[in-house]
Amino acid sequence: MTQTGLYLIGDIPGFTPQIGRLVSMMNYARSTTLQAVAGLGVAELDYLHDPQSNSIGTLLAHIAAAEVGYQAATFDARDLNADERQQWDAAIGLGERAREEIRGYELDHYVGRLEQVRAQTLTQLGRRDDQWLAEETSFRSGQRVNNYFKWFHVIGHEINHRGQILWLRSRANIKP
Amino acid sequence: MTQTGLYLIGDIPGFTPQIGRLVSMMNYARSTTLQAVAGLGVAELDYLHDPQSNSIGTLLAHIAAAEVGYQAATFDARDLNADERQQWDAAIGLGERAREEIRGYELDHYVGRLEQVRAQTLTQLGRRDDQWLAEETSFRSGQRVNNYFKWFHVIGHEINHRGQILWLRSRANIKP
Repeated sequence: MTQTGLYLIGDIPGFTPQIGRLVSMMNYARSTTLQAVAGLGVAELDYLHDPQSNSIGTLLAHIAAAEVGYQAATFDARDLNADERQQWDAAIGLGERAREEIRGYELDHYVGRLEQVRAQTLTQLGRRDDQWLAEETSFRSGQRVNNYFKWFHVIGHEINHRGQILWLRSRANIKP
Repeated sequence: MTQTGLYLIGDIPGFTPQIGRLVSMMNYARSTTLQAVAGLGVAELDYLHDPQSNSIGTLLAHIAAAEVGYQAATFDARDLNADERQQWDAAIGLGERAREEIRGYELDHYVGRLEQVRAQTLTQLGRRDDQWLAEETSFRSGQRVNNYFKWFHVIGHEINHRGQILWLRSRANIKP
């Protein structure tokens, strides 16, 4: 955790002021996620605490999947397409299907996907500005929501599951 | 979840622009915390999943305690005083002492403390401006940190534990 500026929320070169602040928060949240899983092996990544639990690996895939969903929603104003659904549905849905399909992978696999997805997010955010960040749409309920909220929600979603990962990690004391 | 503007991150009357955005995030995060514990009784708030677990009630107290700590740090540039430590130490430290001392309370008790602390935070943030939010200090490591980061961290801390509360809640199916 020695990245310069990781504890500063403010301007970041290549981004408009508000987007820079948002990216500062994304960077920090991601650093804590990676710290939470550092050094885990396959057995720990696959650990199921009880029959309704998600594994740490699945939660990492779920964090990436949510980001892909919000990319489509905010950058392209669309839902995931068929190819994307095939790739991400298990991670999005969690539960039984995820327990069956998302296992046996090394940490690098999950981190690689997180990084790939994040690189795309940063490229797209770098092409947009604060006016875009403030743009509003409506939920079906009629409630107004802006792009800043949606991307803050992606961060909160990651942190929420990081809290669960930390809890699970402290119980997944798997002896080799 | 029908508060107006809960899904908009932007200006809030009474706060400078950046502080308004921060407060938007605080408001939303808090709404999800309260939603996560809505309707819980004492038995569920005291539920201990295993010997090393914190109860949901303790996690709520911990969320409030962290905010009190950051109030002292950022508004007064000091650590908690003796009175505050007496009131909050168990909640800050979690673990055995919290398991012994923080139990038997109704949800209102925890929510009341969260609200009391938050009211103080908002009063103080309303007296400050974006220049204050960007003010930097140093960790002992030499890393720079600004007030925006510290208050974003308070939000992230709350969401992290909300993730654990949701996990625990789904396992605390206590029959009356």
